[in-house]
Amino acid sequence: MSSESIPSPSLLLGVCDYPEHVSSALWADFARQQREIGLSFVRLAEFAWSRMEPASGEYDWTWLDKAIEVASRAGLKVVLCTPTAAPPAWLVHAHPEILPVGRDGRVKTFGSRRHYDVASPVFREHSRRITRALAGRYGQHPAVIGWQTDNEFGWGDTAQTYTPAATDAFRVWLQARYGTLDALNAAWGNVFWSMEYSDWAQIPLPGQAVAACSPSHTLDFMRFTSGLVASFQAEQVAILRGLSPGRFVTHNFMGFFSAYDHYELSRGLDFASWDSYPTGTLTAIDEWRIMEPETAVAFARTGHPDITALNHDLYRGLTGRGHWIMEQQCGQIDWAPSNPLPAKGAVDLWTAQAWAHGADGVAYFRWQAATMAQEQLHSGLLRHNGTPDRGYAEVQGIDTARYPLAPVVNRVALLHDYESLWAYNAQPHSSGLNYWAQTFAYYSALRSLGIDVDIVHPDGDLGSYAVIVAPALTVMGPERASHLAQAAGHAALVFGPRTALRGVSGRGQDGGGFGPLSELLGARPLNFDSLPAGLEQTVAFGADTHATHLWAESYDPQGAEVLATYAGGPLDGLAAVTRHGDVTLIGAHSATLITAVLTDMLGDAGLAVTPLPDGVRVSRRGGRTLVQNWTAHAVTWHGHELAPVSSRVLQEVPV
Amino acid sequence: MSSESIPSPSLLLGVCDYPEHVSSALWADFARQQREIGLSFVRLAEFAWSRMEPASGEYDWTWLDKAIEVASRAGLKVVLCTPTAAPPAWLVHAHPEILPVGRDGRVKTFGSRRHYDVASPVFREHSRRITRALAGRYGQHPAVIGWQTDNEFGWGDTAQTYTPAATDAFRVWLQARYGTLDALNAAWGNVFWSMEYSDWAQIPLPGQAVAACSPSHTLDFMRFTSGLVASFQAEQVAILRGLSPGRFVTHNFMGFFSAYDHYELSRGLDFASWDSYPTGTLTAIDEWRIMEPETAVAFARTGHPDITALNHDLYRGLTGRGHWIMEQQCGQIDWAPSNPLPAKGAVDLWTAQAWAHGADGVAYFRWQAATMAQEQLHSGLLRHNGTPDRGYAEVQGIDTARYPLAPVVNRVALLHDYESLWAYNAQPHSSGLNYWAQTFAYYSALRSLGIDVDIVHPDGDLGSYAVIVAPALTVMGPERASHLAQAAGHAALVFGPRTALRGVSGRGQDGGGFGPLSELLGARPLNFDSLPAGLEQTVAFGADTHATHLWAESYDPQGAEVLATYAGGPLDGLAAVTRHGDVTLIGAHSATLITAVLTDMLGDAGLAVTPLPDGVRVSRRGGRTLVQNWTAHAVTWHGHELAPVSSRVLQEVPV
Amino acid sequence: MSSESIPSPSLLLGVCDYPEHVSSALWADFARQQREIGLSFVRLAEFAWSRMEPASGEYDWTWLDKAIEVASRAGLKVVLCTPTAAPPAWLVHAHPEILPVGRDGRVKTFGSRRHYDVASPVFREHSRRITRALAGRYGQHPAVIGWQTDNEFGWGDTAQTYTPAATDAFRVWLQARYGTLDALNAAWGNVFWSMEYSDWAQIPLPGQAVAACSPSHTLDFMRFTSGLVASFQAEQVAILRGLSPGRFVTHNFMGFFSAYDHYELSRGLDFASWDSYPTGTLTAIDEWRIMEPETAVAFARTGHPDITALNHDLYRGLTGRGHWIMEQQCGQIDWAPSNPLPAKGAVDLWTAQAWAHGADGVAYFRWQAATMAQEQLHSGLLRHNGTPDRGYAEVQGIDTARYPLAPVVNRVALLHDYESLWAYNAQPHSSGLNYWAQTFAYYSALRSLGIDVDIVHPDGDLGSYAVIVAPALTVMGPERASHLAQAAGHAALVFGPRTALRGVSGRGQDGGGFGPLSELLGARPLNFDSLPAGLEQTVAFGADTHATHLWAESYDPQGAEVLATYAGGPLDGLAAVTRHGDVTLIGAHSATLITAVLTDMLGDAGLAVTPLPDGVRVSRRGGRTLVQNWTAHAVTWHGHELAPVSSRVLQEVPV
Repeated sequence: MSSESIPSPSLLLGVCDYPEHVSSALWADFARQQREIGLSFVRLAEFAWSRMEPASGEYDWTWLDKAIEVASRAGLKVVLCTPTAAPPAWLVHAHPEILPVGRDGRVKTFGSRRHYDVASPVFREHSRRITRALAGRYGQHPAVIGWQTDNEFGWGDTAQTYTPAATDAFRVWLQARYGTLDALNAAWGNVFWSMEYSDWAQIPLPGQAVAACSPSHTLDFMRFTSGLVASFQAEQVAILRGLSPGRFVTHNFMGFFSAYDHYELSRGLDFASWDSYPTGTLTAIDEWRIMEPETAVAFARTGHPDITALNHDLYRGLTGRGHWIMEQQCGQIDWAPSNPLPAKGAVDLWTAQAWAHGADGVAYFRWQAATMAQEQLHSGLLRHNGTPDRGYAEVQGIDTARYPLAPVVNRVALLHDYESLWAYNAQPHSSGLNYWAQTFAYYSALRSLGIDVDIVHPDGDLGSYAVIVAPALTVMGPERASHLAQAAGHAALVFGPRTALRGVSGRGQDGGGFGPLSELLGARPLNFDSLPAGLEQTVAFGADTHATHLWAESYDPQGAEVLATYAGGPLDGLAAVTRHGDVTLIGAHSATLITAVLTDMLGDAGLAVTPLPDGVRVSRRGGRTLVQNWTAHAVTWHGHELAPVSSRVLQEVPV
Repeated sequence: MSSESIPSPSLLLGVCDYPEHVSSALWADFARQQREIGLSFVRLAEFAWSRMEPASGEYDWTWLDKAIEVASRAGLKVVLCTPTAAPPAWLVHAHPEILPVGRDGRVKTFGSRRHYDVASPVFREHSRRITRALAGRYGQHPAVIGWQTDNEFGWGDTAQTYTPAATDAFRVWLQARYGTLDALNAAWGNVFWSMEYSDWAQIPLPGQAVAACSPSHTLDFMRFTSGLVASFQAEQVAILRGLSPGRFVTHNFMGFFSAYDHYELSRGLDFASWDSYPTGTLTAIDEWRIMEPETAVAFARTGHPDITALNHDLYRGLTGRGHWIMEQQCGQIDWAPSNPLPAKGAVDLWTAQAWAHGADGVAYFRWQAATMAQEQLHSGLLRHNGTPDRGYAEVQGIDTARYPLAPVVNRVALLHDYESLWAYNAQPHSSGLNYWAQTFAYYSALRSLGIDVDIVHPDGDLGSYAVIVAPALTVMGPERASHLAQAAGHAALVFGPRTALRGVSGRGQDGGGFGPLSELLGARPLNFDSLPAGLEQTVAFGADTHATHLWAESYDPQGAEVLATYAGGPLDGLAAVTRHGDVTLIGAHSATLITAVLTDMLGDAGLAVTPLPDGVRVSRRGGRTLVQNWTAHAVTWHGHELAPVSSRVLQEVPV
Repeated sequence: MSSESIPSPSLLLGVCDYPEHVSSALWADFARQQREIGLSFVRLAEFAWSRMEPASGEYDWTWLDKAIEVASRAGLKVVLCTPTAAPPAWLVHAHPEILPVGRDGRVKTFGSRRHYDVASPVFREHSRRITRALAGRYGQHPAVIGWQTDNEFGWGDTAQTYTPAATDAFRVWLQARYGTLDALNAAWGNVFWSMEYSDWAQIPLPGQAVAACSPSHTLDFMRFTSGLVASFQAEQVAILRGLSPGRFVTHNFMGFFSAYDHYELSRGLDFASWDSYPTGTLTAIDEWRIMEPETAVAFARTGHPDITALNHDLYRGLTGRGHWIMEQQCGQIDWAPSNPLPAKGAVDLWTAQAWAHGADGVAYFRWQAATMAQEQLHSGLLRHNGTPDRGYAEVQGIDTARYPLAPVVNRVALLHDYESLWAYNAQPHSSGLNYWAQTFAYYSALRSLGIDVDIVHPDGDLGSYAVIVAPALTVMGPERASHLAQAAGHAALVFGPRTALRGVSGRGQDGGGFGPLSELLGARPLNFDSLPAGLEQTVAFGADTHATHLWAESYDPQGAEVLATYAGGPLDGLAAVTRHGDVTLIGAHSATLITAVLTDMLGDAGLAVTPLPDGVRVSRRGGRTLVQNWTAHAVTWHGHELAPVSSRVLQEVPV
């Protein structure tokens, strides 16, 4: 099943609604308004467990019956949510052992949301029970087109769980993975610091040690907890499949969220969704320092185009099918340090970009601003007093006919892998650099050259790509290496720093170096250099020099040619960029160098390169080209006059 | 009873003394010196529980008998303190359950001060017992003129208590407030995130949830803990009233302290006191960013005049009777990040300002610098070696005849409310802005215009004011609204941003908007905009434009006229300031705009406006005008030559 | 015993090796290479407990037998380590009570290193047992020349222990120190805040109180925990002495580490060692603000010469015998926020400096970069793939004949005392200033004048010095004072701010002032002034003025002459520097003033002063002078052309 359950020629718009938050006297009028501004569906029932089951085993469906009925009658379709992100107070009171425990060993209490331990057998039983009850009642309702599992798994730092139940389960998981303690000790390198285990019961969770645990310990803990979340969801998905045939099942992920493997969680879903809050995500990544403070201020009212686009491409790529924006910002939010109003035009800008990057559905968050509780200062399409807010008019003005559904077909892939992310960030080595910041540098360089990008798992199907960019594939096993070597038969490959630094266990490669990727790269690693703020390293590439910050890695060519060398400093004269056949290896973290190398490479691969001004981006879907200006000033580009914060859809690719 | 228990025509000066810290051989000479430099009283016995009762039930009054005797014989009056801020070790050892528990769930141990749980019935019993014993012995001593309860309630983050006793008491308190869980669930908006309770025993304290609790939950927890502190004090006050008739009872609050409702705590007191440390308070509020770093450095040796004055006006206003400075800085302190020496003249500057803002008594802290323990690097009037420190000579030079006691009578009120403070800060939305920073902007604007200000509770008597400024009355119920509407019959009113954002429960107004204040304001709220650092919003007011930072709120006039509009940005063309009759609403956080609007308003109200240079301030009391120069350079103002850090008392209002 | 156990005419070089981390097939070749590049010894067996004793009481020596055999056969000597820094999992599992508890009361788990409570009787028993077993087996092996106890005591914040066992032991320790509670209460000043104890069982550890505990409480806790670590080590030393006669015993301390008294821990050792990581230490002290950010960047690839030299002089001075560098950085490290590659030449630079400052042995850390676990991104002399890394060639190029062993004989002493350090930092009073930052200012001034410095305990032998500099002797008892007065008979003395601020108990001096040092100084303290960033105080010294930051202390001369006075500000006209005979007292924290005063003083004492350019330093040992250029650019100095990052050894003192 997929979103074709609403057969639609063009982008579907909807809204997240919480009818239980307002008087039912308003429902019919709300539904009417929703239809009037062009919405096709509502997302309902998220977090509503205490209303579905006010006391243990006592269900109350009357309100939801009516809410669905009202929506349906108005011509709206319904996406339902399992309510498990908000276990009710009576359940917590009866079973306090379901509460989560943080890395610091402290129990987290009721009073917010996500107060459950994903490892708790007791909670899982209740999760299955409420899912069964809900799906049993509405699974075949004609208005119900799909399901969202739970809400934002991992929010509030809840994916990594430190309960006794999790500790036990981790040991079982490790036993299943390694079979013997000898194997585990070898895989983790436990001879180091006498960390060897002689009994499974000796193994702690990696939260409370004197200092950092082994990165292998951490990596397996991330795999384990990712698996817990995935299996928790899978239990719900299985029930939904059984009781609600023909409906899609998805989950609403979060921008850049990294605490589990989103590929693993997407395996049983029809497509992935994510919650897009461009102004919030911009500041959430302040600490990555991927842009100058002035740039961040310049984009304060729209977010940065490449940040949002990267997440679209990421979540589309999880299943390769049109993704949804399950929560789309349509006004000011409330959870960033500061929450500026979106620029005029931003809602259309974001919606159009979502479409061009493959979205089939967009649900605005939320219908009416909540007049209570934690999100009281978050906007909705209606104000607190029920009058239309700024986003309302913007949504009304969106002509979805401009956004026909079609597959996104790209020739350039960017490889992304959560295990590499975890391993990278477990030992960052250079303050200010992390997996996402490094990955973003490559993604943004491609986008600034007018290139559309698929974000793909390195072990996925790479057969259709002409250029494959692997910014930070730190974890490299023999199977992955051979898969990439195969891809090199038909595509140009680019690797960034820290490539293949570790094997599957998180240890360095047996025998050092690039391990199973050595032959493909035709080079051996020499030194890496962490550059503190203020310390630069120069790279000479052709006639130009480029300033490198944060990270500089050098190579010993073993067959590869040297494309660029370091000039001055401890790496003076050593290779910064090598090329072995069509495989390029970039060791220097330099936005301008990356852009220059990619420009050459894309050209060699016969792909059109279109250098774009800052804040101007093009994206292509189904024969149409979306040209957007994300800046606050008008831009003329290739003869197109682009108003501030605006889009154009061109039938022809313009360049 | 009030401070008239020492009939005095002019400001009373005294000192905080701890005779138990030094050899009794020194006491007589100390008393003589105290008299010589013009002091009238000593504050004694603070924290001295372990000396009063060295073991459970074994009292030792000999030392305090003698200390009072020595003071009395020298002609000094005595203010006594209940010693409950320092429970002795034997009591904690016998009853470890009286120890406080922090928000993080960890027990705080003995070894500092305030290590008690205000909710503990056991500790309360001992509090009453020691108060009874102390007041029984000295309550009618002729030298004893008054009492200080405990010391600095809430210091060390102890007002909010997270013990099991507090948890139980919170549930009882909620039951008393709401009657039913339905009422509580509705008031808190608990349908949100399924936070509905079906048993009182399910309700946690709001400290340890996965993420923020509901602001209503937090608001009621603040009310509850405020009430706990108030009832704890009331028990002592009742005993003191019974055993020490005719003496005043007060408490020494702290500058800007916000963890309980000071109006509630002041209800049973004769007058309020506070502990004024101008150089410390200056840096304690660094994070509010209310002044540029260079300004803070410029005032490093005096503190900022408006910061100290605001607290004077606040604490005077708690009871409306002459307040005391129970601890007045008279040298360098030890608790700020850096503790510069006060400028020459600062002690007189501070004392004079205290007087002009309504203080009837000032006690310097402390007589001799402690040669031991936590405050070893804090100064006193005597140095560690017993010789006079810099402040000693300054105190000696103060001519209290310049500072005759008289009521402070002002025509301008600034409204302040702790519930609004708690609700505001529970969801600040804009990094760098908080309740006090916003309130200070209005207060400082008034002071820079030469206006004397009463700080008054919004539900208090407003009958005598010509202008009423309400910078941040976020919490607005119908009674408050009608009280304000009444005030508008005789006074001009000004409201700042976030006015009436919430009802009494902390939820948004029923029906949204300004709720019960809508009619008075003649406007509806449109959008608010949080401006991150670096992002400005321009406001056009008359011929001028003003830069707005941090917060910009817009309005839909419903009868009001528009005084100022936003220019550019998402709020372009919308109202930034409205006026409805004599009620003005300012939505933009801009010091210059606030000053400009107030200037017009004060003029319209017939109040004299005197724009003052930075650091120069005038204050009026009883027909005299105090003109002060808080800067490090000489200033000529209206013909008066003001030396650096100096005051003049003029008989006539100069302008 | 001492390092003469390898009779060597010149600096001994070695390496830290972990043969258990790699295949034994590599061992012989590794040993051969080690010899080829000039290494004389290997350090083995650190952290290897789980390999020595894989299960309780089951020892396995086969691997270590062979490792020692291989080294020995290649001509390498062996330094062995007791493995107690890494208790094996089976021991923790059997005795979870040996786990440490942090200041926050949380148990720290297995999974890293140093997970033991130094106060645990159970762990101490196992520590003695494994030491006995190891020393019994290898103590008399001809290749074994010495022992390292444990590893980096206190690393990971483990010196201060908060277990129940520590609490009990602290009470016993206090009882032994004070005899009676009256004595303890008096010594700590517990009358303050009613902190008086009436039962030893009432005394808590100073970790979890509402706010800071008394500095006397903290000071005694530091003494107590220092003693625990010392007695823990002493148990091992006694065993090693018995079972391994004729071998040296040392411990590898850490740069600037402050959590115990290193003099106390060194008492039973033959000499002290330390682990020198110049690029890491540079950034570890960022928060001390002892250099401008640009300076820190300029030295990012070498570290700062004075920072490393200070630690050499400190650790040499612990025993007064040639110290060792037990771990010498020889490539990039992994534990600083950013970890740049060392400059070309840095390994020789560091080695030469170590020698010139008295080192007899240098062991590079480590042989091959670990391919696993926590230190995977830390370099070694061999890369992960076994090929020589950059440091390998540098070590190979070192000609140890340039570095003959000889005593270091200096005429200038700098006094350093851990009790003063603890007392100073317990109440810093001025943000940005601490004990080490103040001490460094004096040390660096001396070094910039070309002076070689002994760092000496104030109660140690001062008989041979012409100039004695005491930057921060905050703790001053009568015995220390009289010892210093004796030294003043033959040497010029300089004291810095906060001198003698406290007696032995941490309280202020009885009677205030400088207490027992008053007569020597010929002055009384007046005020100290903490200067926040941006606030300067000017000092007039001779014809010059100097800007003072952070701290300015003034004096009342009682016989001393005034050398410099404050100009302007609250201290205007008061003494900033006094001189009483040959005893100078500097109250202003000003690098230029310190340098100017020292220049005069050194000249008066007949010592040659050689002002040096930034980054150029000279050091003398045994008639040779080492001239070093630590900068990235060539420098010509006194006719010597110094390449970037280079050294010269001159036979004659050049000036």
